[in-house]
Amino acid sequence: MLYLVGMGLEPGDMTLKGREAVLKAGKVFIETYTSMPYDIGDLQKEITSVDREFVEKGDLLELAGTADVVLLIPGDPLFATTHISLMKEARDKAIPLQVCHAPSVINTLSHTGLSPYKFGRIITLSKPFPSDREKLEANLKAGLHTLCLLDPIISLSDGLRVLQDFGVTQKVVACQQLGMKTQTIHYGTITDLLPLSFSKKPCCLLVPADLHFFEEEFLNQFIHNKSC
Amino acid sequence: MLYLVGMGLEPGDMTLKGREAVLKAGKVFIETYTSMPYDIGDLQKEITSVDREFVEKGDLLELAGTADVVLLIPGDPLFATTHISLMKEARDKAIPLQVCHAPSVINTLSHTGLSPYKFGRIITLSKPFPSDREKLEANLKAGLHTLCLLDPIISLSDGLRVLQDFGVTQKVVACQQLGMKTQTIHYGTITDLLPLSFSKKPCCLLVPADLHFFEEEFLNQFIHNKSC
Repeated sequence: MLYLVGMGLEPGDMTLKGREAVLKAGKVFIETYTSMPYDIGDLQKEITSVDREFVEKGDLLELAGTADVVLLIPGDPLFATTHISLMKEARDKAIPLQVCHAPSVINTLSHTGLSPYKFGRIITLSKPFPSDREKLEANLKAGLHTLCLLDPIISLSDGLRVLQDFGVTQKVVACQQLGMKTQTIHYGTITDLLPLSFSKKPCCLLVPADLHFFEEEFLNQFIHNKSC
Repeated sequence: MLYLVGMGLEPGDMTLKGREAVLKAGKVFIETYTSMPYDIGDLQKEITSVDREFVEKGDLLELAGTADVVLLIPGDPLFATTHISLMKEARDKAIPLQVCHAPSVINTLSHTGLSPYKFGRIITLSKPFPSDREKLEANLKAGLHTLCLLDPIISLSDGLRVLQDFGVTQKVVACQQLGMKTQTIHYGTITDLLPLSFSKKPCCLLVPADLHFFEEEFLNQFIHNKSC
């Protein structure tokens, strides 16, 4: 049996059934290639870091064919394409698989006051790709907020500059460690936010569309360098 | 301190830090008005069911001003508007609040093979509201899938009939207990799916937009009455 166990956003975010899977597994691996290095806390178990090749070339599935194996995954385990493919491959090879979900950034958007029911398509900022600009503009035109994930190789300031390249002039929300005890949320124009120092990861940017008065009132508490 | 603790989708989906909050709290409440009655498993703690009035009229916040209080919430604790308001009110009254996130339906969409990065705005089906039809059509036009939540008072078959009223003729995905061990997924036209018996809750419908070949291949395993 292969267990895909989400680690959530910070230590303590694993679910009880995820923890149970870890405790009873013969082998526990952690993948470190879809996210930044991650504090997993103490799981009282030997944990082996594995790379993309190990997971994608079938070594993991081969092991899971004869033993209970856990793959730990930062955030929610079914958010990255590579893990969805793994689930498909396990099914094709008739290897039993169980997913233990866990909180990911998609669960935490409400900390900013923005309604989770008013988000459009997610985009991932890396370099300024024209297709991302189009997706963002389509969301805004439809009155929908945009969650901008950041490629792990770029900083929050780089992300702000990409949005600037896209012609965004309205106030945006810059989030560090959203949903964690250490979260900070800043709300302002890109020009206001760029001079701030953003060093904590993970981080993301939210581009709000038209705001409901409740959303606006909530967001206003994060203006400039007030942090949460 | 007020802890908003998500119960996730099924027993075992609470996080380790959520469980810790429950164990140390002086009082533990569960709200039963934003979701259907819920199997919470054994938390070895006395748990009091509370209604909307208790939560919204401030009794909960008053208690949390002097003791550690947990409010258990099915799914993720920050997905319903009423809990986002509660967070705002706690902040206004300077009552410390901590959110323990947990998996919700939004984490589970990939079980169908549909990419979480290709979803547009969420809609909630109850009666056939024209604004929901417009949101659905806007998503489809933008090439985006739609997660259709169902008002707890209507059945999955009712939801299919609302989509039929909206003029949906393409194949849709009918999900029962998505993300739980007991999940079932059916893929077909509304005419194909309506004769099936859907009795398990919670349930939701997904309306796919244009499919990537991987998504299509994945979905095809759920055609008609093949279940997962």
